[in-house]
Amino acid sequence: MARYVVDVMPKPEILDPQGKAVLGALPRLGFDGVADVRQGKRFEIEIDGDATDERRAEVEKMAETLLSNPVIEDFAVRVEETVA
Amino acid sequence: MARYVVDVMPKPEILDPQGKAVLGALPRLGFDGVADVRQGKRFEIEIDGDATDERRAEVEKMAETLLSNPVIEDFAVRVEETVA
Repeated sequence: MARYVVDVMPKPEILDPQGKAVLGALPRLGFDGVADVRQGKRFEIEIDGDATDERRAEVEKMAETLLSNPVIEDFAVRVEETVA
Repeated sequence: MARYVVDVMPKPEILDPQGKAVLGALPRLGFDGVADVRQGKRFEIEIDGDATDERRAEVEKMAETLLSNPVIEDFAVRVEETVA
């Protein structure tokens, strides 16, 4: 069993209202010195079998077609761990 | 400038309807062999100054009080990079 992690974040040039809402709330809660907050999604995907190049290519394809909107979001895929 | 990353994931014992929806959609899109999908949030937080233990403690506090719901979610904080 292999676990892949897919991070999906709004592209830098795209407005991120959720991140901005968090950024605006922080000073009111007493947190200062925060320059920026961006909010995205994280997916943990457990796949049968070992972490191979083919599996990774499949996860990249999932990220591109289902997990992200490539027009407004960037994604990154990595293997987090391989569980026996 | 330091960048912290906060990953917020539903606790293992908590139902994750968004992850289940993705899991259900994958075979229809031709992706097989996926055992589980969990969906959570990822925050990228840019903080003035260097990545110190005090800053990290502040980010942990933000994660606990604002970014996550500790009843149903786990979070993890890490420094991603320090930008000059």
